[in-house]
This record gives sequence, C-alpha cells and structure tokens, in this order.
Amino acid sequence: MLPLARRLIAEAVGTAFLLMAVIGSGIAAQRLSPGDVGLQLFENAVATAFALMALIWAFGPVSGAHFNPAVTLADVVLHGRPVREGIAYVGAQVAGGIVGAVLANLMFALPPVTWSTKVRSGPDLWLAEVIATLGLLFVIFLIPRNRAVVIPVAVGAYIGAAYFFTSSTSFANPAVTVARMFSDTFAGIFPASAPIFIVMQLIGAGLAIGLVLLLRGRESA
Amino acid sequence: MLPLARRLIAEAVGTAFLLMAVIGSGIAAQRLSPGDVGLQLFENAVATAFALMALIWAFGPVSGAHFNPAVTLADVVLHGRPVREGIAYVGAQVAGGIVGAVLANLMFALPPVTWSTKVRSGPDLWLAEVIATLGLLFVIFLIPRNRAVVIPVAVGAYIGAAYFFTSSTSFANPAVTVARMFSDTFAGIFPASAPIFIVMQLIGAGLAIGLVLLLRGRESA
Amino acid sequence: MLPLARRLIAEAVGTAFLLMAVIGSGIAAQRLSPGDVGLQLFENAVATAFALMALIWAFGPVSGAHFNPAVTLADVVLHGRPVREGIAYVGAQVAGGIVGAVLANLMFALPPVTWSTKVRSGPDLWLAEVIATLGLLFVIFLIPRNRAVVIPVAVGAYIGAAYFFTSSTSFANPAVTVARMFSDTFAGIFPASAPIFIVMQLIGAGLAIGLVLLLRGRESA
Amino acid sequence: MLPLARRLIAEAVGTAFLLMAVIGSGIAAQRLSPGDVGLQLFENAVATAFALMALIWAFGPVSGAHFNPAVTLADVVLHGRPVREGIAYVGAQVAGGIVGAVLANLMFALPPVTWSTKVRSGPDLWLAEVIATLGLLFVIFLIPRNRAVVIPVAVGAYIGAAYFFTSSTSFANPAVTVARMFSDTFAGIFPASAPIFIVMQLIGAGLAIGLVLLLRGRESA
Repeated sequence: MLPLARRLIAEAVGTAFLLMAVIGSGIAAQRLSPGDVGLQLFENAVATAFALMALIWAFGPVSGAHFNPAVTLADVVLHGRPVREGIAYVGAQVAGGIVGAVLANLMFALPPVTWSTKVRSGPDLWLAEVIATLGLLFVIFLIPRNRAVVIPVAVGAYIGAAYFFTSSTSFANPAVTVARMFSDTFAGIFPASAPIFIVMQLIGAGLAIGLVLLLRGRESA
Repeated sequence: MLPLARRLIAEAVGTAFLLMAVIGSGIAAQRLSPGDVGLQLFENAVATAFALMALIWAFGPVSGAHFNPAVTLADVVLHGRPVREGIAYVGAQVAGGIVGAVLANLMFALPPVTWSTKVRSGPDLWLAEVIATLGLLFVIFLIPRNRAVVIPVAVGAYIGAAYFFTSSTSFANPAVTVARMFSDTFAGIFPASAPIFIVMQLIGAGLAIGLVLLLRGRESA
Repeated sequence: MLPLARRLIAEAVGTAFLLMAVIGSGIAAQRLSPGDVGLQLFENAVATAFALMALIWAFGPVSGAHFNPAVTLADVVLHGRPVREGIAYVGAQVAGGIVGAVLANLMFALPPVTWSTKVRSGPDLWLAEVIATLGLLFVIFLIPRNRAVVIPVAVGAYIGAAYFFTSSTSFANPAVTVARMFSDTFAGIFPASAPIFIVMQLIGAGLAIGLVLLLRGRESA
Repeated sequence: MLPLARRLIAEAVGTAFLLMAVIGSGIAAQRLSPGDVGLQLFENAVATAFALMALIWAFGPVSGAHFNPAVTLADVVLHGRPVREGIAYVGAQVAGGIVGAVLANLMFALPPVTWSTKVRSGPDLWLAEVIATLGLLFVIFLIPRNRAVVIPVAVGAYIGAAYFFTSSTSFANPAVTVARMFSDTFAGIFPASAPIFIVMQLIGAGLAIGLVLLLRGRESA
C-alpha cells in the first residue's frame, strides 16, 4: 500500500486532468464547431471518454483512480475503505477538479475563474443524473478484480455514451459538478443548479450499492 | 453459478441500460444535430457501441450479458443452456428493454410511452436484419472462451459498424426491436414493422448457429 | 489445425462481411450525409475500423482472418504457410469479397452489381497504396505472438487512421480492391484503376516483408 | 536486446508513420471538410489516436516505440537508458519525422517540402504544451510493466483527447514539432513558433519526471 499522501496527490492530479479534458474539450468544441451543438457534444464526449481511459490506467495503480466522490463512497461501503481515507480522497478530488477547471480556462486564454451561467435544471435532468451515476457504478463495481485491467476502457466508454444517452450529459460525479461551476463555457453548470445534481448522484450511488450487493454479493467484492 | 433470480435481474437491468443508450442517444442526436441525419446516426452508433462495451463487461460476469433473445437462443442450442432458463432470460430482456425505453423517454421529458410511427419495411431492410444478426452471432460465438474478455469490445464495435453498414441500422435483437416501438423518436420502429424484423433476426440466428457449428465444431463450444 | 475447407469458408465469409462494412457504410454515409465528403469518409472509416476489430477477433481463431491477399503473401513468406494453401486463401478472399459487395448493394436496394465509375489514379495515390500496405503489414507481422490478441484492434485502428492519412483512402488489400469495382458507390473503384492499385499493394507488401525480416528477424517469426 | 541499429530503424520508421498520420490526416480533413474546423480537428484527432495505438503495438517490441524525444529523455532518467543511446534515438526520431512529413506532402500531391506559415504562439498555448506533455508522460510512465500491453491504447486515447482539450492541439513531442514545420497544411507550425513549443515540452517532461518519481518511486520503475 502506498502512503496516503501519494494517493491523494494522484487523486488530485488525475481529477485535475479529467476536468481539463471535460472543460477544455468543451471550450475547443464550442469555438471550432460554432452553431453545431451536436458535433460539439460529440467532440466533447469522445475527448472525455479517451481521457478517462488514459487517466484511469495511469493513476489506477497509485490511488485507484476514483476521481469521483460517488465512487469513493461506494468503495467505502463495498470494499471497506476507511471513512477517514474516503473523506481525504473526496477533498483531493474536489481541490484537484477546481485546479483543473482553472487550468482549462487559462489554456484557452480565459480568466482563471468565470462562474458558469448555464442553468441545468428540471426533473428530466435529475432523473438522468440518478441513472448516469447508477450505470457508472455498475461498470466499476460489477467488473471482477481479475478483469480490472479493462475498467478504464469500460468507464471511458460508458461516460462517452452517457454524454449522449442521458439528457443531463451525464455529470455523474460530485467533484466534477463542483468544478464545472468555475468555467462559463460549454461544460459549465450554474452554481445554483449544482446541489440537486449532487443529491441525485448520491441517490444513484445508493441505488448502485444496493444492486451491486444484490447482484454480486458482498463476499465476492 | 449464481442463483437464476440474480441473473434475470442482471439481464433486465442491463437490457434497460442498453435501450436507454439506443433510444436516449437517438433523441439527443435528433435534438442537437437537427437536419443532419448522418451525424445523428454517427452519434447514435458510437454511443451504442460504447455503451455495449461497458454494459457487457459489467453484467457479463453475472448473467452472460446476452441482452438479446437471439443470443440466448444460440446459447441454448450451442452451449446447452436449459430451455426454461432461456425463456426466462428472454422475458427479462423484453421487460427490461421496455423499462429502458420508458426511462429514455422520461429522461428527455417525453411522455413515458409514445408509439413509434417510423415505418421500417422492405426486402432490403429485411435482408439487412438477417445479415446483421448473422454477423453479431459470429462475433459472440466464434471468439473462444480464453479470449472472452474481448467479446464486449467486439460486440460494441460490430454493432457500431453495423448501424452504418446495414440499411436497417442493425437492430439484430428481438428485445430491442420490441422496446423501440415504445418511443416515437429517432430509434423507434412502427409496431407493424417489428414482427418481420424479428423473423429475419431469427433466420439470421439460425444461419449463424449452423455456420458456427460448421466452423468451430460443437465440441469446442 | 482445422481442415482447410473450414478455414476457406471463414476467409470467404469474413471477407464478405468486411466488404459489406466497407461498401455498405459508404453507401449509408453518402445517403445520410450528402454534400459533406469529410463526414462521409469519417463515418466510413470508423465503421470499417470497428468491423475489422470484430471480424478479426471472430474469424482469427478459425483461419487467421487474413481477408487480404497481401497478408496471405506475407504469411507464406514469413511464416512458411504452404503456397498452395495461400493460393486457396486468395481465391476464397476474392470470391467472398465479391459476394460481400453484391450483398451490400442488395441491402441498400441497388442492383446486385453496378460497375464503379470512380477513377482513382495518379502517382500520389499509388504512393499512398504502397505506404498503406507497408504500414498494415508492419502492424500485423511486428506484433509478437504472445500479444496476438491485440492485433484486431491494431489492424482496425490502423485502417481507420489510414482512410484519412493516405490520399487513396487506404485500400491496402487486393481482394478489397477487386470487390470494390462491383459497386458504383462511395467506396467503389473504376475497374481500369484497380490493377495499378494492386501492383502498388504488392510492392508495399514486398517492402514490408524485407523490413519485418530486418527488424524482427526471421527466426522470431 | 536487439542491436541498436534495428531499434533506430524502428524509431525512424515508426515516427515517419506517426507524422504521416498527423500531417496526412490533417490535409485530408482540410480538403474534405472545408470550412468546418471542428470536424477537421475531430478527424485529425481520431486518425492520430488510432495510428498511435497501431504503431506503438507494432514497433514497441523492437525499440520501445518512443517516437518522441521527451519520452526518450524520461526513459533515460527514469529507466536508466544510456545517454548515448538516447541521443541516437532522438536523431532517428527527428530524421524519421521529417521523412514522414515529406511523404505526407507527396501522398497528397504537394511539393516535398512547404514551410508552414501557421503561427502558434502565446502563453495560453505554451501552458497547454507543458500540460499536454506532462499528461502524456504520466500515461506512459505510471502504467506498470505488467500492464504494458495497454500503453498503446492509453497513449493513443490520451493524444486523441488532448488534441481537443489543450488549446495547442497537443504537440507534446519535439520531433513531431520539428517535422510539422515541413508542411504548410492543417497540422503545420511556423518554424519561429517551434522553439518555444519544444522548451515547454521539455518543462512538461521535467515536471512529469519529478511527479512520477514521487508517485511511483524510482525503485518500482
């Protein structure tokens, strides 16, 4: 087991890169494909999917590459990760995510922080966030350990798909939701829209934990 | 071997997610890329391909992740799965698929059920469904067990390709065909068009079973 | 070792599906994305890449999944496959490819055969075919046997890329070149343009054989 | 260990193919998708990502498939590759890259060399190059040896994503930067813009080396 500090750095740096991928590719898509929202989301989805594959393979051996408080929560419940460690992970993810949002803004010559004005609200989007998170945790926690090497592809592919098949474009991640408030660009979210998104993600995580226990059995975790 | 109930839940939940991916990404593509049918199908195809990869890896270890009565039929014939179990699988797939269609509609703020008015008919499309199903079962049943880990990528990639290379956009799945009747959106099918599609899929499955036996030999299944 | 007949059927059926993927996705792209040649080629390239991955995984364990006389030629020289068997392979590939072209036409409600009128000629395209085939054979013959499971992804990814990075859109396959004459659609080739393409592919194969021997050594083949 | 000459040929040929992929797909995208810069970059990014996967799998067993002086530098520091050998690698990469640029021009019927006039400059792009290179080296050097088989997918996916999520479109490679000066097309770079790009890439490599040592420990390299 690596010392906790190393793992927290890995969670922070990895989540920073994830947010650069999410927000940065959104900015590029918006600028390069103006007036074609579908193509923008397509570019954003493929970039995010590909980045997730690479980042989870890279940082997975160090920290597990959660990059997502909902994943860490499920890991605490399903795999017995200590609660204190889980809390530290979440802190590293949120901090790293915000740094990533700031770096994405800077890479595209925007001010370090521009608060998003993009309202994302309504029961259809909230349902979508429950479903998006539920599916994400299925992918991570149903794949058995002896096939863990494929999890990065599965997660990237799932999120790439869910950008399109959920109406919320699948945030599915409280740290990503917080960090996306910091960029008034394609991938942003109006701060007042964020709390309900996070609640829905936690509901999705709760459902996933129950169903994973039912389907796989706690003992085989 | 997991208890049958768990496996049926996995088939139902997995097929529900598959239908959300198929129908949901179709709705998103239609809304975000209006007037560009090729781009819509491209987005729909990539989302479906990516979702299949993730879902089969996730649910495969529980139920085999058929999500498709044609696959279950071939599994009964080629691998000796009990017929009663096969029937239960098909029921779970159809029920799960319909739930997925309803959830896709709800995620995009549509009524739970809108019967599709999209006529899909003609000998060219019927030939395409035979071929699409034939190829799908080759991919699933010719890959040997010691390489089973790659089947999810192969199936996702095949279906993603077949969305474009068959004129029917490759339904290749009776449960998906039934469920797609429940959404009057991009991926829908007019109910009266569905039965012949399913017949053609079963013909394709029959051809595949024969050719797999010829090419691989029953003994090595 | 499977009986030769089984392997020839696998080569024929697999090459037929490859041609359906190449020509069928070209027809769909042309119809659905009219007036946007770049998007058409993008759709065609991704469909071909994905189909190759699935088909090589499926038919590889039966016949090696060459689907390509240039690959069979290199296999004869580098791996000692008997010449008579190689000739039988090539026959199966060409026959299967033509059947695939006919089926693609029929799936899209075209006459079974429409001779292509698409002239593809010029030293730039010929150079491209040499390079495309050279790279393809590097990918197939430099990857060592203990990693053979990744060859389908590598080949699909390579061809998907080469559709864009070569000016000829990377035929790189004499059987595919012959079969593409049979469809006057996006992926077709005017019959008089085909012979030089095939000569260039064989030159590329020759260069590849030499360089593979130099880089890997015949003994480790 | 293969003789050095073989490995240098592999580095040169592989980097030549990489540059053909980068520049050639850029030319094709520019010609086929005129007036749609976002789609051009999307096509260019997917072609580059796919090519990288195939090329690293093919040439990796011969030379390690660095194709990138920043990777060779980190390999010298982290894995103890001899400095003289590293210098020879860099020479082979630069020479191969230039040959690839020339061949890309020729494949598209352009003069062998056309000096790029595309100015790429500004602190936002320079920051992007630091980040792009940092992330690339994380992907290569944090994935442990027993999972080395996935590195080609991870690198391809990372670069494909970074084309979109960095404002510089992620050169992240001094040899690629030099070679891109030789083509006045989509992927080109004005020679006067190149030196600072390379400095930034080396800064990114330095940061990556430090962080990899911190995260993984030199002993486990």
